[in-house]
Amino acid sequence: MPVGLGRLGHVSLIGAYPEPVRTPITNADDPRIEVYLGLRDQVARQQREQPGGDMAGFFIAEGDLVIERALEHGFTLDSVLIGERRTKPLPDAVDGHTIYAANDEVLTEITGRPALRDPIACFIRPEPTPLDKLLTSNSTFAVLENVNNPNNLGVIMRNAAGLGVDAVLLDPTCGDPLYRRAIRSSMGQVFALPHARIPTLPAGLDTLHGHGIETVALSPAGTTNLRDLARPSKVAILLGAEGPGLTDATMAAAIHQVRIPMHKGVDSLNVANAAAIAFHHFAS
Amino acid sequence: MPVGLGRLGHVSLIGAYPEPVRTPITNADDPRIEVYLGLRDQVARQQREQPGGDMAGFFIAEGDLVIERALEHGFTLDSVLIGERRTKPLPDAVDGHTIYAANDEVLTEITGRPALRDPIACFIRPEPTPLDKLLTSNSTFAVLENVNNPNNLGVIMRNAAGLGVDAVLLDPTCGDPLYRRAIRSSMGQVFALPHARIPTLPAGLDTLHGHGIETVALSPAGTTNLRDLARPSKVAILLGAEGPGLTDATMAAAIHQVRIPMHKGVDSLNVANAAAIAFHHFAS
Repeated sequence: MPVGLGRLGHVSLIGAYPEPVRTPITNADDPRIEVYLGLRDQVARQQREQPGGDMAGFFIAEGDLVIERALEHGFTLDSVLIGERRTKPLPDAVDGHTIYAANDEVLTEITGRPALRDPIACFIRPEPTPLDKLLTSNSTFAVLENVNNPNNLGVIMRNAAGLGVDAVLLDPTCGDPLYRRAIRSSMGQVFALPHARIPTLPAGLDTLHGHGIETVALSPAGTTNLRDLARPSKVAILLGAEGPGLTDATMAAAIHQVRIPMHKGVDSLNVANAAAIAFHHFAS
Repeated sequence: MPVGLGRLGHVSLIGAYPEPVRTPITNADDPRIEVYLGLRDQVARQQREQPGGDMAGFFIAEGDLVIERALEHGFTLDSVLIGERRTKPLPDAVDGHTIYAANDEVLTEITGRPALRDPIACFIRPEPTPLDKLLTSNSTFAVLENVNNPNNLGVIMRNAAGLGVDAVLLDPTCGDPLYRRAIRSSMGQVFALPHARIPTLPAGLDTLHGHGIETVALSPAGTTNLRDLARPSKVAILLGAEGPGLTDATMAAAIHQVRIPMHKGVDSLNVANAAAIAFHHFAS
Protein backbone atom coordinates (compact mmCIF):
# COMPACT_ATOMS: atom_id res chain seq x y z
CA MET A 1 0.00 0.00 0.00
CA PRO A 2 1.52 3.38 -0.97
CA VAL A 3 2.57 5.37 2.04
CA GLY A 4 0.97 8.75 2.65
CA LEU A 5 -2.18 8.32 0.60
CA GLY A 6 -4.43 8.71 3.64
CA ARG A 7 -7.72 10.54 3.32
CA LEU A 8 -6.20 13.88 4.23
CA GLY A 9 -3.54 13.56 1.58
CA HIS A 10 -5.80 12.87 -1.38
CA VAL A 11 -6.07 16.31 -2.87
CA SER A 12 -2.40 17.06 -3.08
CA LEU A 13 -1.41 13.56 -4.10
CA ILE A 14 -3.71 12.95 -7.06
CA GLY A 15 -1.74 11.06 -9.62
CA ALA A 16 1.29 10.58 -7.39
CA TYR A 17 0.59 6.91 -6.64
CA PRO A 18 -1.01 4.17 -8.70
CA GLU A 19 -4.74 3.72 -8.14
CA PRO A 20 -6.22 0.23 -7.66
CA VAL A 21 -7.05 -1.56 -10.90
CA ARG A 22 -10.58 -0.73 -12.08
CA THR A 23 -12.68 -3.32 -13.86
CA PRO A 24 -15.04 -1.60 -16.32
CA ILE A 25 -18.72 -2.54 -16.13
CA THR A 26 -20.73 -1.55 -19.17
CA ASN A 27 -23.86 -3.66 -18.83
CA ALA A 28 -26.32 -3.73 -15.92
CA ASP A 29 -26.89 -7.44 -16.60
CA ASP A 30 -23.24 -8.20 -15.81
CA PRO A 31 -23.47 -10.95 -13.17
CA ARG A 32 -20.48 -9.50 -11.31
CA ILE A 33 -22.55 -6.54 -10.15
CA GLU A 34 -25.78 -8.40 -9.47
CA VAL A 35 -25.43 -7.73 -5.75
CA TYR A 36 -25.62 -3.98 -6.42
CA LEU A 37 -28.99 -4.15 -8.18
CA GLY A 38 -32.27 -3.28 -6.49
CA LEU A 39 -30.77 -0.98 -3.88
CA ARG A 40 -33.58 1.52 -4.10
CA ASP A 41 -36.34 -0.73 -2.78
CA GLN A 42 -35.69 -0.41 0.94
CA VAL A 43 -38.04 -3.13 2.19
CA ALA A 44 -37.24 -5.69 -0.48
CA ARG A 45 -33.53 -5.06 -0.14
CA GLN A 46 -33.51 -5.71 3.60
CA GLN A 47 -35.46 -8.94 3.08
CA ARG A 48 -33.18 -10.17 0.30
CA GLU A 49 -30.10 -9.73 2.50
CA GLN A 50 -31.61 -11.76 5.35
CA PRO A 51 -31.16 -15.54 5.73
CA GLY A 52 -33.00 -17.27 2.90
CA GLY A 53 -32.89 -14.19 0.68
CA ASP A 54 -31.05 -14.24 -2.66
CA MET A 55 -28.52 -11.76 -1.27
CA ALA A 56 -28.11 -13.34 2.13
CA GLY A 57 -24.54 -13.13 3.27
CA PHE A 58 -23.91 -9.62 1.96
CA PHE A 59 -24.50 -6.06 3.00
CA ILE A 60 -23.95 -2.80 1.18
CA ALA A 61 -22.15 0.23 2.55
CA GLU A 62 -21.62 3.55 0.80
CA GLY A 63 -19.22 6.43 1.14
CA ASP A 64 -15.44 6.61 1.61
CA LEU A 65 -15.62 7.17 5.35
CA VAL A 66 -18.13 4.40 5.97
CA ILE A 67 -16.16 1.90 3.87
CA GLU A 68 -12.97 2.78 5.72
CA ARG A 69 -14.70 2.31 9.08
CA ALA A 70 -16.05 -1.10 8.08
CA LEU A 71 -12.53 -2.21 7.10
CA GLU A 72 -11.05 -0.79 10.31
CA HIS A 73 -13.54 -2.86 12.28
CA GLY A 74 -12.51 -6.03 10.45
CA PHE A 75 -15.43 -6.51 8.06
CA THR A 76 -14.57 -8.39 4.86
CA LEU A 77 -14.86 -6.41 1.63
CA ASP A 78 -16.12 -8.22 -1.44
CA SER A 79 -15.96 -5.41 -4.00
CA VAL A 80 -16.40 -1.69 -4.55
CA LEU A 81 -18.51 -0.06 -7.23
CA ILE A 82 -17.61 3.42 -8.47
CA GLY A 83 -18.60 5.58 -11.41
CA GLU A 84 -16.12 5.31 -14.27
CA ARG A 85 -15.78 9.10 -14.19
CA ARG A 86 -14.53 9.21 -10.61
CA THR A 87 -11.19 11.02 -10.47
CA LYS A 88 -10.88 11.37 -6.68
CA PRO A 89 -8.53 8.64 -5.46
CA LEU A 90 -10.06 5.81 -3.48
CA PRO A 91 -9.24 5.33 0.20
CA ASP A 92 -6.00 3.40 0.80
CA ALA A 93 -8.00 0.81 2.64
CA VAL A 94 -9.56 -0.62 -0.55
CA ASP A 95 -6.17 -1.26 -2.12
CA GLY A 96 -5.97 -4.81 -3.47
CA HIS A 97 -9.74 -5.25 -3.59
CA THR A 98 -11.96 -5.59 -6.65
CA ILE A 99 -13.07 -2.20 -7.98
CA TYR A 100 -15.86 -2.09 -10.55
CA ALA A 101 -16.08 1.11 -12.56
CA ALA A 102 -19.58 1.43 -14.02
CA ASN A 103 -20.61 3.61 -16.93
CA ASP A 104 -23.51 6.08 -16.79
CA GLU A 105 -26.04 3.59 -18.10
CA VAL A 106 -25.25 1.02 -15.41
CA LEU A 107 -25.26 3.69 -12.70
CA THR A 108 -28.68 4.88 -13.84
CA GLU A 109 -29.98 1.34 -13.55
CA ILE A 110 -28.63 1.06 -10.01
CA THR A 111 -29.18 4.52 -8.51
CA GLY A 112 -31.63 6.21 -10.88
CA ARG A 113 -28.99 8.76 -11.85
CA PRO A 114 -26.07 8.66 -14.28
CA ALA A 115 -23.59 9.55 -11.57
CA LEU A 116 -22.35 8.20 -8.28
CA ARG A 117 -21.07 10.70 -5.75
CA ASP A 118 -19.95 8.08 -3.27
CA PRO A 119 -18.55 4.61 -3.83
CA ILE A 120 -20.79 1.66 -2.97
CA ALA A 121 -19.20 -1.39 -1.41
CA CYS A 122 -20.36 -4.94 -0.94
CA PHE A 123 -19.22 -6.57 2.29
CA ILE A 124 -19.58 -10.11 3.60
CA ARG A 125 -22.30 -10.10 6.24
CA PRO A 126 -20.90 -11.57 9.45
CA GLU A 127 -22.58 -14.46 11.21
CA PRO A 128 -25.18 -13.22 13.70
CA THR A 129 -23.70 -12.70 17.15
CA PRO A 130 -25.06 -15.29 19.60
CA LEU A 131 -27.41 -13.51 22.00
CA ASP A 132 -26.26 -15.44 25.06
CA LYS A 133 -22.66 -14.45 24.53
CA LEU A 134 -23.64 -10.76 24.37
CA LEU A 135 -25.82 -10.99 27.44
CA THR A 136 -23.18 -12.65 29.60
CA SER A 137 -20.22 -10.50 28.60
CA ASN A 138 -21.74 -7.00 28.71
CA SER A 139 -23.54 -4.71 31.13
CA THR A 140 -25.22 -1.91 29.13
CA PHE A 141 -27.74 -2.67 26.40
CA ALA A 142 -30.22 -0.90 24.17
CA VAL A 143 -33.30 -2.87 23.13
CA LEU A 144 -35.23 -1.67 20.09
CA GLU A 145 -38.85 -2.51 19.33
CA ASN A 146 -40.18 -1.96 15.82
CA VAL A 147 -37.59 0.69 14.91
CA ASN A 148 -37.70 0.63 11.12
CA ASN A 149 -36.74 4.10 10.03
CA PRO A 150 -33.16 3.62 8.78
CA ASN A 151 -32.16 7.12 9.83
CA ASN A 152 -33.39 6.68 13.39
CA LEU A 153 -31.88 3.22 13.53
CA GLY A 154 -28.50 4.51 12.34
CA VAL A 155 -28.43 7.49 14.68
CA ILE A 156 -29.39 5.26 17.62
CA MET A 157 -26.47 2.95 16.74
CA ARG A 158 -24.09 5.93 16.55
CA ASN A 159 -25.36 7.21 19.90
CA ALA A 160 -25.10 3.77 21.46
CA ALA A 161 -21.51 3.29 20.30
CA GLY A 162 -20.44 6.78 21.30
CA LEU A 163 -22.18 6.84 24.66
CA GLY A 164 -20.95 3.55 26.07
CA VAL A 165 -23.75 1.11 25.28
CA ASP A 166 -22.10 -2.32 24.88
CA ALA A 167 -24.59 -3.98 22.52
CA VAL A 168 -27.88 -3.29 20.72
CA LEU A 169 -30.64 -5.89 20.73
CA LEU A 170 -33.37 -5.76 18.08
CA ASP A 171 -36.79 -7.38 18.15
CA PRO A 172 -37.92 -9.22 15.00
CA THR A 173 -39.90 -6.21 13.76
CA CYS A 174 -36.91 -3.85 13.67
CA GLY A 175 -35.08 -2.92 10.49
CA ASP A 176 -31.57 -4.10 9.67
CA PRO A 177 -28.73 -2.06 11.19
CA LEU A 178 -26.58 -3.19 8.25
CA TYR A 179 -29.00 -1.76 5.70
CA ARG A 180 -27.01 0.86 3.77
CA ARG A 181 -29.05 3.89 4.83
CA ALA A 182 -28.85 2.89 8.49
CA ILE A 183 -25.10 2.43 8.15
CA ARG A 184 -24.82 5.84 6.55
CA SER A 185 -26.89 7.56 9.25
CA SER A 186 -24.68 5.92 11.85
CA MET A 187 -21.61 7.43 10.13
CA GLY A 188 -20.30 3.87 10.04
CA GLN A 189 -20.44 3.61 13.84
CA VAL A 190 -22.81 0.67 13.51
CA PHE A 191 -19.61 -1.33 12.97
CA ALA A 192 -18.23 -0.27 16.35
CA LEU A 193 -20.59 -2.28 18.51
CA PRO A 194 -22.25 -5.68 18.34
CA HIS A 195 -25.94 -6.22 17.76
CA ALA A 196 -28.20 -9.25 17.87
CA ARG A 197 -31.83 -10.20 17.38
CA ILE A 198 -33.95 -11.09 20.38
CA PRO A 199 -37.23 -13.02 20.37
CA THR A 200 -40.57 -11.25 20.01
CA LEU A 201 -41.34 -8.71 22.73
CA PRO A 202 -42.45 -8.62 25.44
CA ALA A 203 -41.60 -12.32 25.95
CA GLY A 204 -38.05 -11.63 24.75
CA LEU A 205 -37.45 -9.56 27.87
CA ASP A 206 -37.55 -12.74 29.97
CA THR A 207 -34.19 -13.71 28.48
CA LEU A 208 -32.69 -10.42 29.68
CA HIS A 209 -34.27 -10.68 33.13
CA GLY A 210 -32.89 -14.22 33.38
CA HIS A 211 -29.41 -12.73 33.00
CA GLY A 212 -30.00 -10.25 35.82
CA ILE A 213 -30.41 -7.33 33.41
CA GLU A 214 -32.83 -4.63 34.61
CA THR A 215 -35.02 -3.42 31.78
CA VAL A 216 -35.87 0.30 31.59
CA ALA A 217 -38.68 1.33 29.24
CA LEU A 218 -38.28 4.90 27.97
CA SER A 219 -41.56 6.60 27.12
CA PRO A 220 -43.34 9.93 27.61
CA ALA A 221 -45.79 7.82 29.68
CA GLY A 222 -43.08 6.58 32.07
CA THR A 223 -43.90 7.04 35.76
CA THR A 224 -40.34 7.70 36.98
CA ASN A 225 -38.22 10.68 36.03
CA LEU A 226 -35.11 9.31 34.28
CA ARG A 227 -32.97 11.46 36.59
CA ASP A 228 -34.30 9.62 39.63
CA LEU A 229 -33.30 6.13 38.49
CA ALA A 230 -29.79 5.19 39.58
CA ARG A 231 -27.91 2.97 37.19
CA PRO A 232 -28.58 -0.74 37.77
CA SER A 233 -25.41 -2.85 37.56
CA LYS A 234 -26.76 -4.45 34.37
CA VAL A 235 -29.20 -2.32 32.41
CA ALA A 236 -31.14 -2.46 29.13
CA ILE A 237 -32.80 0.71 27.79
CA LEU A 238 -35.96 -0.10 25.80
CA LEU A 239 -36.91 2.17 22.89
CA GLY A 240 -39.89 2.06 20.54
CA ALA A 241 -40.45 3.54 17.09
CA GLU A 242 -40.80 7.26 16.47
CA GLY A 243 -44.50 8.01 16.79
CA PRO A 244 -46.09 4.96 18.42
CA GLY A 245 -43.24 4.34 20.87
CA LEU A 246 -43.06 1.12 22.85
CA THR A 247 -46.08 -1.17 22.84
CA ASP A 248 -48.14 -1.21 26.03
CA ALA A 249 -47.25 -4.85 26.59
CA THR A 250 -43.51 -4.18 26.41
CA MET A 251 -43.85 -1.12 28.64
CA ALA A 252 -45.68 -3.22 31.22
CA ALA A 253 -43.18 -6.07 31.08
CA ALA A 254 -40.17 -3.82 31.76
CA ILE A 255 -38.91 -3.51 35.33
CA HIS A 256 -38.74 0.32 35.20
CA GLN A 257 -40.82 2.84 33.23
CA VAL A 258 -39.01 6.16 32.89
CA ARG A 259 -39.79 9.45 31.16
CA ILE A 260 -37.79 12.51 30.19
CA PRO A 261 -39.89 15.41 31.51
CA MET A 262 -41.19 17.66 28.71
CA HIS A 263 -41.68 21.44 28.69
CA LYS A 264 -43.79 23.92 26.71
CA GLY A 265 -46.46 21.38 25.76
CA VAL A 266 -44.05 19.32 23.65
CA ASP A 267 -45.31 15.73 23.60
CA SER A 268 -42.07 13.88 22.94
CA LEU A 269 -38.57 13.96 21.50
CA ASN A 270 -37.34 12.16 18.43
CA VAL A 271 -36.49 8.59 19.50
CA ALA A 272 -32.77 8.84 18.69
CA ASN A 273 -32.48 12.06 20.67
CA ALA A 274 -34.35 10.59 23.64
CA ALA A 275 -32.05 7.57 23.40
CA ALA A 276 -29.00 9.83 23.53
CA ILE A 277 -30.19 11.32 26.82
CA ALA A 278 -30.92 7.92 28.34
CA PHE A 279 -27.65 6.35 27.12
CA HIS A 280 -25.73 9.31 28.57
CA HIS A 281 -27.60 9.00 31.85
CA PHE A 282 -26.68 5.34 32.23
CA ALA A 283 -23.23 5.49 30.60
CA SER A 284 -20.42 4.49 32.86
CA MET B 1 -66.83 26.01 13.51
CA PRO B 2 -68.56 22.63 13.35
CA VAL B 3 -68.36 20.75 16.61
CA GLY B 4 -66.60 17.40 16.69
CA LEU B 5 -64.56 17.72 13.52
CA GLY B 6 -61.26 17.43 15.42
CA ARG B 7 -58.38 15.54 13.93
CA LEU B 8 -59.39 12.28 15.54
CA GLY B 9 -62.89 12.53 14.19
CA HIS B 10 -62.04 13.04 10.55
CA VAL B 11 -62.36 9.54 9.26
CA SER B 12 -65.80 8.81 10.59
CA LEU B 13 -67.17 12.26 9.88
CA ILE B 14 -66.21 12.72 6.25
CA GLY B 15 -69.08 14.48 4.56
CA ALA B 16 -70.95 15.13 7.78
CA TYR B 17 -69.99 18.80 8.03
CA PRO B 18 -69.29 21.39 5.38
CA GLU B 19 -65.63 21.80 4.41
CA PRO B 20 -64.11 25.29 4.11
CA VAL B 21 -64.71 26.91 0.70
CA ARG B 22 -61.97 26.00 -1.76
CA THR B 23 -60.82 28.46 -4.38
CA PRO B 24 -59.66 26.62 -7.51
CA ILE B 25 -56.22 27.51 -8.88
CA THR B 26 -55.66 26.37 -12.45
CA ASN B 27 -52.67 28.44 -13.50
CA ALA B 28 -49.23 28.63 -11.89
CA ASP B 29 -49.06 32.30 -12.92
CA ASP B 30 -52.05 33.13 -10.75
CA PRO B 31 -50.79 36.01 -8.56
CA ARG B 32 -52.72 34.68 -5.57
CA ILE B 33 -50.31 31.76 -5.22
CA GLU B 34 -47.11 33.63 -6.03
CA VAL B 35 -45.90 33.14 -2.47
CA TYR B 36 -45.95 29.37 -2.97
CA LEU B 37 -43.62 29.41 -5.98
CA GLY B 38 -39.92 28.59 -5.75
CA LEU B 39 -40.20 26.43 -2.63
CA ARG B 40 -37.69 23.90 -3.88
CA ASP B 41 -34.66 26.18 -3.92
CA GLN B 42 -33.72 26.06 -0.25
CA VAL B 43 -31.08 28.81 -0.21
CA ALA B 44 -32.95 31.25 -2.45
CA ARG B 45 -36.18 30.68 -0.55
CA GLN B 46 -34.65 31.51 2.80
CA GLN B 47 -33.12 34.69 1.37
CA ARG B 48 -36.37 35.78 -0.27
CA GLU B 49 -38.25 35.51 3.03
CA GLN B 50 -35.71 37.65 4.89
CA PRO B 51 -36.01 41.46 5.23
CA GLY B 52 -35.51 43.02 1.82
CA GLY B 53 -36.50 39.84 -0.03
CA ASP B 54 -39.56 39.72 -2.29
CA MET B 55 -41.27 37.36 0.13
CA ALA B 56 -40.26 39.10 3.32
CA GLY B 57 -43.04 39.00 5.83
CA PHE B 58 -44.12 35.43 5.08
CA PHE B 59 -43.12 31.92 5.97
CA ILE B 60 -44.32 28.57 4.70
CA ALA B 61 -45.37 25.64 6.85
CA GLU B 62 -46.53 22.25 5.63
CA GLY B 63 -48.55 19.40 7.08
CA ASP B 64 -51.80 19.31 9.05
CA LEU B 65 -50.10 18.93 12.42
CA VAL B 66 -47.59 21.70 11.82
CA ILE B 67 -50.28 24.12 10.59
CA GLU B 68 -52.41 23.36 13.63
CA ARG B 69 -49.46 23.97 15.95
CA ALA B 70 -48.68 27.31 14.32
CA LEU B 71 -52.29 28.41 14.81
CA GLU B 72 -52.31 27.17 18.42
CA HIS B 73 -49.25 29.31 19.09
CA GLY B 74 -50.97 32.39 17.67
CA PHE B 75 -49.31 32.71 14.29
CA THR B 76 -51.43 34.44 11.63
CA LEU B 77 -52.46 32.30 8.67
CA ASP B 78 -52.60 33.95 5.27
CA SER B 79 -53.78 31.02 3.14
CA VAL B 80 -53.57 27.27 2.66
CA LEU B 81 -52.73 25.49 -0.58
CA ILE B 82 -54.03 21.96 -1.16
CA GLY B 83 -54.29 19.63 -4.13
CA GLU B 84 -57.74 19.79 -5.74
CA ARG B 85 -57.99 16.02 -5.36
CA ARG B 86 -57.64 16.11 -1.56
CA THR B 87 -60.60 14.34 0.02
CA LYS B 88 -59.33 14.18 3.62
CA PRO B 89 -60.99 17.00 5.56
CA LEU B 90 -58.81 19.90 6.60
CA PRO B 91 -58.05 20.57 10.26
CA ASP B 92 -60.78 22.56 12.03
CA ALA B 93 -58.23 25.23 12.77
CA VAL B 94 -58.13 26.46 9.15
CA ASP B 95 -61.88 27.07 9.07
CA GLY B 96 -62.65 30.54 7.77
CA HIS B 97 -59.28 30.92 6.08
CA THR B 98 -58.52 31.09 2.38
CA ILE B 99 -58.03 27.64 0.87
CA TYR B 100 -56.53 27.37 -2.60
CA ALA B 101 -57.13 24.06 -4.37
CA ALA B 102 -54.54 23.65 -7.12
CA ASN B 103 -54.79 21.33 -10.09
CA ASP B 104 -52.07 18.84 -11.03
CA GLU B 105 -50.32 21.22 -13.39
CA VAL B 106 -49.97 23.93 -10.75
CA LEU B 107 -48.80 21.39 -8.17
CA THR B 108 -46.14 20.11 -10.56
CA GLU B 109 -44.88 23.65 -11.00
CA ILE B 110 -44.64 24.11 -7.23
CA THR B 111 -43.49 20.75 -5.94
CA GLY B 112 -42.21 18.90 -8.99
CA ARG B 113 -44.99 16.32 -8.66
CA PRO B 114 -48.66 16.35 -9.69
CA ALA B 115 -49.79 15.63 -6.15
CA LEU B 116 -49.57 17.15 -2.71
CA ARG B 117 -49.68 14.79 0.24
CA ASP B 118 -49.70 17.53 2.83
CA PRO B 119 -51.24 20.99 2.72
CA ILE B 120 -48.86 23.94 2.44
CA ALA B 121 -49.72 27.08 4.36
CA CYS B 122 -48.50 30.64 4.12
CA PHE B 123 -48.23 32.45 7.46
CA ILE B 124 -47.40 36.03 8.32
CA ARG B 125 -43.83 36.14 9.62
CA PRO B 126 -43.80 37.77 13.04
CA GLU B 127 -41.58 40.73 13.80
CA PRO B 128 -38.16 39.60 15.06
CA THR B 129 -38.08 39.25 18.84
CA PRO B 130 -35.85 41.96 20.37
CA LEU B 131 -32.70 40.28 21.68
CA ASP B 132 -32.52 42.39 24.85
CA LYS B 133 -36.00 41.39 25.88
CA LEU B 134 -35.13 37.71 25.53
CA LEU B 135 -31.87 38.08 27.43
CA THR B 136 -33.41 39.88 30.40
CA SER B 137 -36.49 37.70 30.81
CA ASN B 138 -35.03 34.18 30.45
CA SER B 139 -32.36 32.02 32.05
CA THR B 140 -31.63 29.09 29.68
CA PHE B 141 -30.49 29.69 26.11
CA ALA B 142 -29.12 27.78 23.15
CA VAL B 143 -26.75 29.66 20.84
CA LEU B 144 -26.23 28.28 17.34
CA GLU B 145 -23.25 29.03 15.12
CA ASN B 146 -23.48 28.29 11.40
CA VAL B 147 -26.18 25.63 11.78
CA ASN B 148 -27.65 25.49 8.27
CA ASN B 149 -28.93 21.98 7.87
CA PRO B 150 -32.71 22.44 8.17
CA ASN B 151 -33.17 19.01 9.72
CA ASN B 152 -30.59 19.61 12.44
CA LEU B 153 -31.95 23.11 13.01
CA GLY B 154 -35.49 21.79 13.38
CA VAL B 155 -34.57 18.93 15.69
CA ILE B 156 -32.50 21.30 17.84
CA MET B 157 -35.56 23.59 18.13
CA ARG B 158 -37.77 20.63 19.08
CA ASN B 159 -35.22 19.51 21.68
CA ALA B 160 -34.85 23.03 23.03
CA ALA B 161 -38.60 23.49 23.43
CA GLY B 162 -39.15 20.08 24.98
CA LEU B 163 -36.17 20.16 27.32
CA GLY B 164 -36.74 23.54 28.93
CA VAL B 165 -34.54 25.90 26.93
CA ASP B 166 -36.22 29.33 27.07
CA ALA B 167 -34.97 30.82 23.80
CA VAL B 168 -32.69 30.02 20.86
CA LEU B 169 -30.20 32.58 19.60
CA LEU B 170 -28.80 32.29 16.07
CA ASP B 171 -25.68 33.86 14.65
CA PRO B 172 -25.95 35.54 11.22
CA THR B 173 -24.63 32.43 9.42
CA CYS B 174 -27.37 30.11 10.70
CA GLY B 175 -30.34 29.03 8.61
CA ASP B 176 -33.89 30.22 9.24
CA PRO B 177 -35.83 28.28 11.90
CA LEU B 178 -39.02 29.29 10.05
CA TYR B 179 -37.84 27.69 6.80
CA ARG B 180 -40.41 25.02 5.99
CA ARG B 181 -38.10 22.01 6.27
CA ALA B 182 -36.77 23.20 9.63
CA ILE B 183 -40.35 23.69 10.84
CA ARG B 184 -41.22 20.20 9.68
CA SER B 185 -38.20 18.59 11.37
CA SER B 186 -39.17 20.40 14.57
CA MET B 187 -42.67 18.84 14.33
CA GLY B 188 -43.93 22.41 14.61
CA GLN B 189 -42.23 22.85 18.00
CA VAL B 190 -40.24 25.75 16.58
CA PHE B 191 -43.41 27.75 17.30
CA ALA B 192 -43.26 26.88 21.00
CA LEU B 193 -40.23 28.95 21.90
CA PRO B 194 -38.83 32.34 20.88
CA HIS B 195 -35.71 32.79 18.82
CA ALA B 196 -33.63 35.80 17.83
CA ARG B 197 -30.55 36.70 15.84
CA ILE B 198 -27.38 37.70 17.64
CA PRO B 199 -24.41 39.59 16.19
CA THR B 200 -21.50 37.77 14.58
CA LEU B 201 -19.65 35.37 16.88
CA PRO B 202 -17.53 35.39 18.89
CA ALA B 203 -18.13 39.12 19.50
CA GLY B 204 -21.84 38.42 19.92
CA LEU B 205 -21.08 36.52 23.11
CA ASP B 206 -20.18 39.81 24.82
CA THR B 207 -23.85 40.74 24.80
CA LEU B 208 -24.69 37.53 26.67
CA HIS B 209 -21.84 37.96 29.13
CA GLY B 210 -23.02 41.52 29.76
CA HIS B 211 -26.34 40.05 30.92
CA GLY B 212 -24.62 37.70 33.36
CA ILE B 213 -25.21 34.67 31.16
CA GLU B 214 -22.49 32.01 31.39
CA THR B 215 -21.62 30.63 27.97
CA VAL B 216 -20.90 26.90 27.64
CA ALA B 217 -19.28 25.71 24.41
CA LEU B 218 -20.15 22.08 23.59
CA SER B 219 -17.48 20.30 21.57
CA PRO B 220 -15.61 16.99 21.45
CA ALA B 221 -12.56 19.17 22.20
CA GLY B 222 -14.08 20.56 25.42
CA THR B 223 -11.80 20.29 28.47
CA THR B 224 -14.53 19.72 31.09
CA ASN B 225 -16.84 16.72 31.25
CA LEU B 226 -20.40 18.04 30.87
CA ARG B 227 -21.37 16.04 33.96
CA ASP B 228 -18.92 18.02 36.11
CA LEU B 229 -20.34 21.45 35.28
CA ALA B 230 -23.09 22.48 37.67
CA ARG B 231 -25.82 24.61 36.15
CA PRO B 232 -25.01 28.34 36.21
CA SER B 233 -28.01 30.46 37.20
CA LYS B 234 -28.11 31.88 33.68
CA VAL B 235 -26.67 29.63 30.99
CA ALA B 236 -26.25 29.58 27.21
CA ILE B 237 -25.26 26.33 25.47
CA LEU B 238 -23.20 26.99 22.32
CA LEU B 239 -23.51 24.57 19.40
CA GLY B 240 -21.77 24.52 16.02
CA ALA B 241 -22.66 22.88 12.74
CA GLU B 242 -22.55 19.11 12.22
CA GLY B 243 -19.04 18.35 11.02
CA PRO B 244 -16.95 21.45 11.70
CA GLY B 245 -18.55 22.23 15.05
CA LEU B 246 -17.94 25.54 16.78
CA THR B 247 -15.21 27.80 15.41
CA ASP B 248 -12.02 27.97 17.46
CA ALA B 249 -12.64 31.66 18.15
CA THR B 250 -16.12 31.02 19.55
CA MET B 251 -14.85 28.07 21.61
CA ALA B 252 -12.15 30.27 23.10
CA ALA B 253 -14.51 33.14 23.85
CA ALA B 254 -16.95 30.97 25.81
CA ILE B 255 -16.64 30.84 29.60
CA HIS B 256 -16.78 27.03 29.74
CA GLN B 257 -15.69 24.37 27.22
CA VAL B 258 -17.44 21.07 27.83
CA ARG B 259 -17.41 17.69 26.12
CA ILE B 260 -19.59 14.61 26.21
CA PRO B 261 -17.11 11.75 26.70
CA MET B 262 -17.05 9.36 23.74
CA HIS B 263 -16.56 5.59 23.71
CA LYS B 264 -15.43 2.99 21.17
CA GLY B 265 -13.42 5.43 19.07
CA VAL B 266 -16.52 7.40 18.04
CA ASP B 267 -15.42 10.97 17.30
CA SER B 268 -18.66 12.82 17.93
CA LEU B 269 -22.45 12.71 18.06
CA ASN B 270 -24.85 14.37 15.68
CA VAL B 271 -25.22 17.99 16.82
CA ALA B 272 -28.94 17.75 17.63
CA ASN B 273 -28.36 14.62 19.71
CA ALA B 274 -25.46 16.22 21.57
CA ALA B 275 -27.67 19.26 22.13
CA ALA B 276 -30.38 17.04 23.64
CA ILE B 277 -27.92 15.71 26.21
CA ALA B 278 -26.66 19.18 27.12
CA PHE B 279 -30.16 20.70 27.28
CA HIS B 280 -31.28 17.85 29.53
CA HIS B 281 -28.23 18.31 31.73
CA PHE B 282 -28.96 22.00 32.27
CA ALA B 283 -32.77 21.80 32.21
CA SER B 284 -34.43 22.99 35.38
